[in-house]
Amino acid sequence: MNHTRIELITPIITEGLRTLDEVRPFERPDLTITHRLIRQGPASIESEFDEALAVPDTIRAALEAERRGADAIIIDCMGDPGLQACREVLSIPVVGPGQTAMHFAGMLGHRFSFITVLERLRPMVGRLIAGYGLASSFASFRAVDIPVLDIGADTGRLTAALSRESIAAVQQDGADVIVLGCTGFMGCATAMRASLLEAGCDVPVIDPIPLALHVADALVRTGLAHSKRTWPAPGRKRIAGFRIPGFDSD
Amino acid sequence: MNHTRIELITPIITEGLRTLDEVRPFERPDLTITHRLIRQGPASIESEFDEALAVPDTIRAALEAERRGADAIIIDCMGDPGLQACREVLSIPVVGPGQTAMHFAGMLGHRFSFITVLERLRPMVGRLIAGYGLASSFASFRAVDIPVLDIGADTGRLTAALSRESIAAVQQDGADVIVLGCTGFMGCATAMRASLLEAGCDVPVIDPIPLALHVADALVRTGLAHSKRTWPAPGRKRIAGFRIPGFDSD
Amino acid sequence: MNHTRIELITPIITEGLRTLDEVRPFERPDLTITHRLIRQGPASIESEFDEALAVPDTIRAALEAERRGADAIIIDCMGDPGLQACREVLSIPVVGPGQTAMHFAGMLGHRFSFITVLERLRPMVGRLIAGYGLASSFASFRAVDIPVLDIGADTGRLTAALSRESIAAVQQDGADVIVLGCTGFMGCATAMRASLLEAGCDVPVIDPIPLALHVADALVRTGLAHSKRTWPAPGRKRIAGFRIPGFDSD
Amino acid sequence: MNHTRIELITPIITEGLRTLDEVRPFERPDLTITHRLIRQGPASIESEFDEALAVPDTIRAALEAERRGADAIIIDCMGDPGLQACREVLSIPVVGPGQTAMHFAGMLGHRFSFITVLERLRPMVGRLIAGYGLASSFASFRAVDIPVLDIGADTGRLTAALSRESIAAVQQDGADVIVLGCTGFMGCATAMRASLLEAGCDVPVIDPIPLALHVADALVRTGLAHSKRTWPAPGRKRIAGFRIPGFDSD
Amino acid sequence: MNHTRIELITPIITEGLRTLDEVRPFERPDLTITHRLIRQGPASIESEFDEALAVPDTIRAALEAERRGADAIIIDCMGDPGLQACREVLSIPVVGPGQTAMHFAGMLGHRFSFITVLERLRPMVGRLIAGYGLASSFASFRAVDIPVLDIGADTGRLTAALSRESIAAVQQDGADVIVLGCTGFMGCATAMRASLLEAGCDVPVIDPIPLALHVADALVRTGLAHSKRTWPAPGRKRIAGFRIPGFDSD
Amino acid sequence: MNHTRIELITPIITEGLRTLDEVRPFERPDLTITHRLIRQGPASIESEFDEALAVPDTIRAALEAERRGADAIIIDCMGDPGLQACREVLSIPVVGPGQTAMHFAGMLGHRFSFITVLERLRPMVGRLIAGYGLASSFASFRAVDIPVLDIGADTGRLTAALSRESIAAVQQDGADVIVLGCTGFMGCATAMRASLLEAGCDVPVIDPIPLALHVADALVRTGLAHSKRTWPAPGRKRIAGFRIPGFDSD
Repeated sequence: MNHTRIELITPIITEGLRTLDEVRPFERPDLTITHRLIRQGPASIESEFDEALAVPDTIRAALEAERRGADAIIIDCMGDPGLQACREVLSIPVVGPGQTAMHFAGMLGHRFSFITVLERLRPMVGRLIAGYGLASSFASFRAVDIPVLDIGADTGRLTAALSRESIAAVQQDGADVIVLGCTGFMGCATAMRASLLEAGCDVPVIDPIPLALHVADALVRTGLAHSKRTWPAPGRKRIAGFRIPGFDSD
Repeated sequence: MNHTRIELITPIITEGLRTLDEVRPFERPDLTITHRLIRQGPASIESEFDEALAVPDTIRAALEAERRGADAIIIDCMGDPGLQACREVLSIPVVGPGQTAMHFAGMLGHRFSFITVLERLRPMVGRLIAGYGLASSFASFRAVDIPVLDIGADTGRLTAALSRESIAAVQQDGADVIVLGCTGFMGCATAMRASLLEAGCDVPVIDPIPLALHVADALVRTGLAHSKRTWPAPGRKRIAGFRIPGFDSD
Repeated sequence: MNHTRIELITPIITEGLRTLDEVRPFERPDLTITHRLIRQGPASIESEFDEALAVPDTIRAALEAERRGADAIIIDCMGDPGLQACREVLSIPVVGPGQTAMHFAGMLGHRFSFITVLERLRPMVGRLIAGYGLASSFASFRAVDIPVLDIGADTGRLTAALSRESIAAVQQDGADVIVLGCTGFMGCATAMRASLLEAGCDVPVIDPIPLALHVADALVRTGLAHSKRTWPAPGRKRIAGFRIPGFDSD
Repeated sequence: MNHTRIELITPIITEGLRTLDEVRPFERPDLTITHRLIRQGPASIESEFDEALAVPDTIRAALEAERRGADAIIIDCMGDPGLQACREVLSIPVVGPGQTAMHFAGMLGHRFSFITVLERLRPMVGRLIAGYGLASSFASFRAVDIPVLDIGADTGRLTAALSRESIAAVQQDGADVIVLGCTGFMGCATAMRASLLEAGCDVPVIDPIPLALHVADALVRTGLAHSKRTWPAPGRKRIAGFRIPGFDSD
Repeated sequence: MNHTRIELITPIITEGLRTLDEVRPFERPDLTITHRLIRQGPASIESEFDEALAVPDTIRAALEAERRGADAIIIDCMGDPGLQACREVLSIPVVGPGQTAMHFAGMLGHRFSFITVLERLRPMVGRLIAGYGLASSFASFRAVDIPVLDIGADTGRLTAALSRESIAAVQQDGADVIVLGCTGFMGCATAMRASLLEAGCDVPVIDPIPLALHVADALVRTGLAHSKRTWPAPGRKRIAGFRIPGFDSD
Repeated sequence: MNHTRIELITPIITEGLRTLDEVRPFERPDLTITHRLIRQGPASIESEFDEALAVPDTIRAALEAERRGADAIIIDCMGDPGLQACREVLSIPVVGPGQTAMHFAGMLGHRFSFITVLERLRPMVGRLIAGYGLASSFASFRAVDIPVLDIGADTGRLTAALSRESIAAVQQDGADVIVLGCTGFMGCATAMRASLLEAGCDVPVIDPIPLALHVADALVRTGLAHSKRTWPAPGRKRIAGFRIPGFDSD
C-alpha cells in the first residue's frame, strides 16, 4: 500500500493559530501530514487585501512542498487564496477547503449555509460560490462577528455563537447543511451538531480541514488531480521582486 | 484506528458484470468492501423504466446492508437510482457515484463531459445534472453506442470509442474533465488518459467507483452523512406487494 | 367530433381518497374519464420512498390503460411519480399534474407558491422544480402540516390552513399565483380564492386535476404527445419480480 | 355545459393572411371562435418597431372583444405583442401563443427549437424566452428566411424549408421538440412531422394557434385567468392620441 | 474637441415634470442637452398599458431628434419604453436609464435594490431585469407608494420615504447599491445618501439621468453604439394610423 | 467645471508596452490622465500566477495615486487584477476595463464574444464572467494565439487575426458585440470594425481602455464610486514582506 504525504499550508504569518498537533489525529499508518506557515503576508485573512498579500508566498510554499516530496497540498483558509495560481504551477493535487466543503455540502443536502467570522466577507463568499458554480445550492451567509485572531480567546462563546447562527440558518433560511466558514473553527463541529440536534435540526456540520485531508488522500490514491487544461503551467517570463522556485529571474 | 465496511450494491440482476475482485484492490487494512446484486429488477439500467424497476429492491438491499453492519452504501450505477429513497431510510452515508463524480469534476476543472453508453440517456443525464445544481459546470454529453450488457464483449473497441469521444469532448465541446458515465466502464480510465495525453489533452478522467469508495470512507471517518432534514425517515404506512425490512405491513 | 378517453391513475392503494364521482363533472359529451388505483405500492405518497414503491405498478397500470383504449393518462399525484418511465413505455400523452400546474403557474403570473401537506417535502419539490427548468418562476414552498391520509378528516380546518398559507405566500414571499401542492386538495381552490380576495390578494389558485384533464384533452385533440426522442421506448431485457404487460420475461 | 367564446385578434392590418375558415375546424358545439384584425398598425410583425405600432390597437380590440362578450382572447402572433398590457386591462384570460407553445414545449420534451421566418428575430426571441423564464429548456433558434407576407406564396417551398431546419435542429442542436415560430405557419406541422419521422426524428411539432385555442378554452372552463396581482388594472389618467374604450380622456 | 448633442426624450405628455433647467447643470462646453416631450401618449408611465401608448410617439420623437442632428438619445423613464424599437430605427446610441443604471449597479457593488414609485411595478421590473440578464445582481424591489404625478407634491416626504426604503433594502435585503427606480426622483440621491450614511450604510445611490447623460456622451466619444445585428433596421411595409418619419405609407 | 485626474496603472514591469502618448488623445481640457507601471511583478499577465504576483504592487500603486490626488484609478489589464483589493483600500472609483467592457457589451447587444491573446485564458475568463454575473450575455471566447509581449511585433498580422476571430464569433457563435480581450489591443478596433462590416457583420467592437477612461470620468462627475459595503476598508494587522502605504507594520 502506498504512503501519502499531504502538506497543509496555512497562508498567514501568525504562529500558533494552527498547529500540527491539531491535524495529527487524521494521520494513518499510510498517511503523513506536514504543516507550514507562510513567511511573507498578513497576520490573518479577512479581506481581499489580506488575500492578495498572502498569495505570492503561498505559491512559493506550495512549490517547495512539492519539491520536498508532498503528494498533495491543502491551503488552510476557506477563501482558498492562491488555489488557481498554485494549480497552475503544480501537478500534484491542490485542495481548497472552501471549494471542497461547499461541493460536499451540495452532495449532502439541498441547501447549505456558510457561517463565518465577519459580516464583511458576505460579498467575497458570494463571489467564491458563483465562481464555483454552486449558487443554486446556497441558502445563506451568516457571521458571528468575531475576528480570526480572537477565535481562540473564548471557545465557549465562539461555539455558542456558531450554534446560534446555525440553528437560525436552518430555521429561518431553509439551510439543511452547515459549512464552517473559517478553518480556524476546526473542532467546533461536534458541539454545534449537538446544539442543532437539541433544537430539532438534524443537519450535518462540515468541518473543512478534516474533510479536505481525506479528499486530498482520495485524489492521490485514485490518481486524480486538477485538470492541467484548466490550469496550464505559466509561461516563463521576467519577474521582479519575488523569489519563486523555478520561476526566479531577477 | 477504526475499521470501515462499505457495501457496494449493484442495482441489477445480472451476475458477473461486477465482481468483488474488481473492487478488492481498493481495500485497505482498515477498509473492507462487500458486494451484492439485487434480486428483483432489470438485467441492466439504460432507461427510466429500468431504473424504476431497480429501485424497490435497491432499498431493500440497502436496509439489509445497514442491518449487517455496513458503515456506508454505494449504489453501483451512474444514474444513482434510489439515491434519494435510500437516504430517507438510512442514516449511514449513501453515496451515488454519479453525484460524486460530477461534483469532483466540478472541483477538478472548468467544464466536464459525461461519456456514456447510449445516446438515449442524454435527457436523463440532463435532468440528473440539473437536479444536482451542476448545470454551469457541464460541457457536453457523448455516447459510444454500446449497450451495457455488451461492454465486456470487446474491451479494445470500447476503450477506443471512449477515447475518441473524450478527445472530441475536449477539442470540440470545451471539456477539461472527463466523467466516465457508466460504472461498467471501470478500469478504462488509464488507457483513455494515455490516449488523451497523446492527443495533447491533459485532462483528468474520473473513474466513479474507485472515487466513490474513497469518498464513502472519507464520510465515515469524518462522521459525516447526508442531511436527515433533506431526507427524513419515511412515515410508517400500509404497503402492498413489497417486503422491505422495517417497513413490511401486508 | 372525436371522442377522448382519459384515464386517471391514482398511484396509491388506498380506496376512497379519489373517486370517479369527483372528476365526473369534468366529463363532456365527447370526453370520458376513467379511474384506477394501483394494487402494489404505498397507502399514500409523502416521501421518495413512497414514490419508489408506487412507480412500478403505475407503469403497469398505464400500459393496461393504453391497451384498454385510453387516449391519455394522468398520474394523480403532484410529485408526478413515474412520469418519466411511463412516457418511455407509452406513446399516448402522459400528463403529470405537478408539471402541468407549475408550467401554467409560470404562464399566469410572475412567481408561484407551492402549498402542500408536509414540510418534509420541501427538498423533493425543489428537485422537481429544478428538473422542470422552472426555478426562476418559483416564489416559495409552504406546508399545512396535515398528512395525506388526514386530508378528508376536517375539510374546514384544511381549507383554513391552505388559505392562511396562501395569503402569507402572497404577502410575505411575493407569490402571485398559488399552486395546490397535493391532488388530494381538489375542490379547495374556490374557498381559498375567496379568502385570498378578502385579504386583498387577487391571485389565481390552480387546482391541478381539473387543469390536467383539460390539458390532456387538448393534447389529444391537437395530436400532440411527449417527445419520443426525449423518452424512447425501453429496450427489451430480462426483468425479475415484476409483471409488466409487454415487458414480462421471467 | 357552458359555452365558450374565444376571440382571435390578429395584430396586423393585412386582410387575408388569417381567415376565420382556418380556425373553424377547432370549434365545438360548446366553443365558438371569432376573429378580428386591428385597424391601426403594421402590415406584418417582424421587428420591435412593428410590434410597438401594433400594440395600441391590439389593446383597443381586446377591450372591445371583452365588451362584446368574449370569454378569452388570443393574440395571433408568436411575439405575443401586447400580452402584458392586455392582461392589465382585461380580467378574462389573454393567451399568448408564443408563451403557451414554449411552455408546452418545456412539458413535452427536454429542449425545444424555435423555427421562424427571419434570422433578424433571434435576439427578440431570446429576450422573450428569458422573460418567460424558459432559458434552460431552449435548444436553438432557426429561421427559414421567408418574410411573413411571402409565407403563402409557395407552401411547398415553405414546408420544405421548415422541415429542413427542424431536422437540423434535432440532429445538430439537440432539440427534441419543435415550436413553429410564426402563427402564419399554421397547418404546416403535419407535413413537417412526416419529414422529421422519415429522417428518424420522432419529435412533436407544436402548431401554436390550435394549441392556444384549447388552452384558452381550458382556462375558461377551469375558472382560471392571469393573476391580477401580476397585471393590475392601469390607473386612469390623461391620454393623448388614442381612443381606448374605458380609458378615453382627450 | 468634438461637440456632443444629446436629446432627452421624456415619453409622456405632461409638461413641467421634466424641464431643461434640471439637466442643464450637466452640460459642458462640448456637450449640449436638448429636451422634448412626446405629444401622443399617457400623462405618466406606471403600467405596461401606459408604456404601450407611449412607445409609438417616442419612436417618432427619436427619429426627429436624429434628423435634427442629435448624437445620442436618452429615453427619460426607468422602464426604458421603446428602447428596443428606437434602437432598430436609429444608428446613433439610444440609452435607457434603466438598463444603464442597473448595469452600473452591477459594477459598483454585489447586489442592488430598485426603489420606485408603486408596488404594482414589481413584476414589470422583474421582467426588465431578467431581460437584461442581471438577475444574479438583483437584491430586491421596494416601492414608496407615491404615484409619478404626486412626486413633486411633497419633496420632503418623498425623500424620507426613499431613504427609509433604501435603509431597509441594505439592512434587510442585503443590498449594497441603491438604484433610483423612477427618473422623476432626480436630485433625491444626495439627501438619501446622507440618510444612508447616518444609518451606517455606506452604499452608492445611482441617480439614473445624470449617469445616462455621461454614458451617452462616452458612447459618442468612443464611437460606440448599440449593435445593428441585434437591432437591425425594420423592413419597409404598409403602416396604418401612425406618421413616423421615413416609415410613412398610408 | 471641475477637473478630473485619472491614473492608469499598468500592472506589469515591462516598459514601453503602454505609453502616456497612447491615452493622451482622450484627455480633455477638464480631464488629465497620468500613467504608472508597477515595480514588483511580472513582465506580462497571461495566467493566474502572473496575476497573483502583480496584485500586491498594484495595490501599492493605487494607494500612492490616491495620495497624489487622483480622482479615479484604472487597472490596465482585462483580467482586472487587484480590482477587489484596490476597492477595499480606496474610496475613489477603481475601474476594471474587463468588468466595464463586458457590462457595456451587455448593454450594446444580445451576446458578446471575448477575443484575447491565448487559448489558455479560457477558464480564467469564464470565472471572471461568472463572478460578474454576466454569463447569460456571453456568446464565446476566442484567442489569436499571440502572447502579450509579441503584440507589437506585427500589427498587421495581429489585426488580421483579431478580425478573423471576430467574424467567426459573429457568424459561428452568434455574437453581436466584440470585446477586445487584452488592453494591449488598444487601437485595433477601427480596422476590425471595417473588416467586420465588409463581412456583413455590423457589430460594435469595444476597445476597453478608451471606454474605461470615459466611465471613470463619468463616475467622478456623478459622484459615484464602488460600494464601501461591498468592499469595506481592511482591518489593520501585522503584515510581513510588503510596504503598503498606510498598512506598513513590519
